[in-house]
Amino acid sequence: MLVLKHVPVRSFNENIAYIHKDCSIYKVSNIKSLTRIEIHGGEKPVFAFLQIADNNKIVRPDELGLNTEAFSQMGLPEGAEITLTLTPPAPSLSAVRRKIAGNVLSENDYAAIVNDISEHRYSNMDIASFLVAMNSFITPNEILDLAEALRGDKIIDWGTEEIVADYHCIDDIPGNKIDLIITAIVAAYGLPMPKIVSSSSSSGSGILDTMKTLANVNIDTRTLKKQVLERRGAIVDAEKIEICEAERMISKVEKQNGLSTLECSIASLLANKMASGITHLLIDIPVGIRAKIKTSAEATHLRKIIEYVGDRLGLNVDVTITDGSEPIGSGVGPALEARDIIKILKNKEDAPDDLKEKALFMAGRILEFDGKLRGGQGYLVAKELLKSGKAFDAFEMILKTQGKVEAPQLGHLTRDVVADKDGTISRINTSFINKAATLAGAGQYAGAGIDIFRKSGESVTAGDILYRIYSCNQNDFAFVTSLIESGKTGFDIE
Amino acid sequence: MLVLKHVPVRSFNENIAYIHKDCSIYKVSNIKSLTRIEIHGGEKPVFAFLQIADNNKIVRPDELGLNTEAFSQMGLPEGAEITLTLTPPAPSLSAVRRKIAGNVLSENDYAAIVNDISEHRYSNMDIASFLVAMNSFITPNEILDLAEALRGDKIIDWGTEEIVADYHCIDDIPGNKIDLIITAIVAAYGLPMPKIVSSSSSSGSGILDTMKTLANVNIDTRTLKKQVLERRGAIVDAEKIEICEAERMISKVEKQNGLSTLECSIASLLANKMASGITHLLIDIPVGIRAKIKTSAEATHLRKIIEYVGDRLGLNVDVTITDGSEPIGSGVGPALEARDIIKILKNKEDAPDDLKEKALFMAGRILEFDGKLRGGQGYLVAKELLKSGKAFDAFEMILKTQGKVEAPQLGHLTRDVVADKDGTISRINTSFINKAATLAGAGQYAGAGIDIFRKSGESVTAGDILYRIYSCNQNDFAFVTSLIESGKTGFDIE
Repeated sequence: MLVLKHVPVRSFNENIAYIHKDCSIYKVSNIKSLTRIEIHGGEKPVFAFLQIADNNKIVRPDELGLNTEAFSQMGLPEGAEITLTLTPPAPSLSAVRRKIAGNVLSENDYAAIVNDISEHRYSNMDIASFLVAMNSFITPNEILDLAEALRGDKIIDWGTEEIVADYHCIDDIPGNKIDLIITAIVAAYGLPMPKIVSSSSSSGSGILDTMKTLANVNIDTRTLKKQVLERRGAIVDAEKIEICEAERMISKVEKQNGLSTLECSIASLLANKMASGITHLLIDIPVGIRAKIKTSAEATHLRKIIEYVGDRLGLNVDVTITDGSEPIGSGVGPALEARDIIKILKNKEDAPDDLKEKALFMAGRILEFDGKLRGGQGYLVAKELLKSGKAFDAFEMILKTQGKVEAPQLGHLTRDVVADKDGTISRINTSFINKAATLAGAGQYAGAGIDIFRKSGESVTAGDILYRIYSCNQNDFAFVTSLIESGKTGFDIE
Repeated sequence: MLVLKHVPVRSFNENIAYIHKDCSIYKVSNIKSLTRIEIHGGEKPVFAFLQIADNNKIVRPDELGLNTEAFSQMGLPEGAEITLTLTPPAPSLSAVRRKIAGNVLSENDYAAIVNDISEHRYSNMDIASFLVAMNSFITPNEILDLAEALRGDKIIDWGTEEIVADYHCIDDIPGNKIDLIITAIVAAYGLPMPKIVSSSSSSGSGILDTMKTLANVNIDTRTLKKQVLERRGAIVDAEKIEICEAERMISKVEKQNGLSTLECSIASLLANKMASGITHLLIDIPVGIRAKIKTSAEATHLRKIIEYVGDRLGLNVDVTITDGSEPIGSGVGPALEARDIIKILKNKEDAPDDLKEKALFMAGRILEFDGKLRGGQGYLVAKELLKSGKAFDAFEMILKTQGKVEAPQLGHLTRDVVADKDGTISRINTSFINKAATLAGAGQYAGAGIDIFRKSGESVTAGDILYRIYSCNQNDFAFVTSLIESGKTGFDIE
């Protein structure tokens, strides 16, 4: 028997158990590598990876410490008596090894793998191995099996709603946060659109970061359901919504490693949407030289897979292929993007037109999921909902219900980047703009980012401002400044 | 500025930094996934992965805690002032992603990857991704480039020695710890044979575990060199020998994940031997239905790769393909194996003959690396060195120089497994025997293991003892007993 202790450390994904090097019960001095244990005493065993504490500060010899993740799963108070056993690697890892060896896995294999991941039996290493193995070869049927396993049993039930809609863009186009506008329009129309969003990857800022500058996003499943049934829309953090646990663990590893592959992310995406209770999903595949998908052949291949898997999952999927070669809107970064969105919803003169048009196009396609709408009317109805202010009102109600927050200040450190010669802007490099925004701090600080003043095809004179950088601290500002001073601007002028 | 603190936790491979959630300098409350940092203030920056401490027990808001691995690299006392910067993923990870995508990497790519790994810029996840990616496709030239990168610059210099020999078996055949006998014979002949051995994988016990029951194995490079030049042999733990750091980190991940592939392990093996200053290497590839290599075609393929890479590295490699279908010797487990080895070196009547013959064969081939020996004489010279007691004397000197230890007690919990019918033993399942030994505790306790009484081809009567199990604690004994009570013995009797 050891005594349970909470070691208040968050380790991101992995359950860690801390044991004293002179543990009074278990001989651990010999341990030289990652060791898996099973901790008994709670309702069900908790799996964790051992780390050795060399003095009494972390744990005493009669204690077992658990990090925050593992402690919360244990469901016992500090001081509870527990026992532990060494446990062999998860049985389903043999399936992972078969995948590594290039074999096709069965439905049961995927179910077992996903189950072991959700029980924290996989280390991040194990998950990464699984991802890379699928990366080299996976069949459409395997994607389907994986998606079904990832969806799991917890599915949000929207009662009698016939259509529960969502939009998902499979790329990070700078400034492309049309999700908020679409939600406003679709909610104004009356279709429920619950957007459950995972925290953005390291690159730039995500939909959630933009939404956070406007309203609270930490909402639990019950509150979400109530809100969507009343207000027809929500944009919330996936964190508190208890669905697709294994998918989130996988997705954290994907993001941390930049491992994401299109095939597997299809399985993740569709599993998530199914578990969110979505019935009708519009998927946007941007194509561009700097986008994830570089050619329309690739986009078509991807569309086919999405349709194949979506159909078999019983999800109504509409796939649209769009131009992903240039930034959309003006602002890149949470506060700047929110500013653009509010301008559009308020029908301001200076609202970025490309962002507005894309949002209307997508919202229109979603509205057409409604059988009652005459074919081809979606766009016009969306436009009317925006123009009349009904979309703005719907959005305001969503913000109020989630809890409005004060808009963040834009970064106080600014720098204008100007054209170095006369000419016409032939191309804006989206990955450069994303990188500059990230360095400026857009992933960390809501007020950081890039405000783009010019678009491709416009004529400029040397000295014209191309974009303005906003940073919230000296460190980030120095990073982005040194990028700019390397001589590149991300704008090709010819 | 934060104040450095040592958090005395060993995490196996990864550098971990602990930061308070309300850190006085860096805003970390937003961090939701693995974040890489660079810590400045020491001689060179140290890379680590952030974990968040939610109260003051681990670190205070003005402190940065480092686990034992990272703290020792920092080279600063507790209380030193340090700064940190967020750091992007290691640049060479883009090469790993290219490998994942199925590309051939260049010599420079491998050098950059290995360098980043040795600087702790790779998480275990990153390393696992790299391993799995190589697993699906790697060219012989890439294995060569990887081996050269892994070898690194630190190479043990054996001065004027023309031949520095070693033997390596690429599989875990139960009981096959002939390395100790070979070292004794080769040392008795006068060729230097420095065996630098990494801790065994999780399966059963390794060479090092067997050696540990006889002598100290924790020796540093200087002491090793002195010993080998004087005594012509050594069997030591790689832990204190500072070579191939990146290879060891990779190899830990391989072992923890069971990811090891033959191609990559060739690169690891040859890199390690080159860095150990080995000039002549005998590699044993056992072939058998339960062995790593199942067919002689596979073995030949592997031999070709070893020869290709070895030749280009300037290593004199001799590859031998042997029978790996059955256990060798009687004992499986550290103390039992040591007992067999001493019996052979002492020319005891009841010494296991198969183990002795294999050792003589391999030692003979190594002796033939010596140009002065007439071709075909190796085996006879080896036999004479064993019979005359010179090999035993050389081994005793090696043990004494390293520091003899008291032999461990055999486990006090025993169980005899008997034949369930009359007949002839047609096959002994090596992986079953390995599993039983592991469950009995052979990987953790020197006195645990399996003592095999019968060989394939022998006739038995129902009730005859096939093998005896030794365990050192009830837990392990229960595991192995339940395996046996499942009705299997690992022996086919026909």
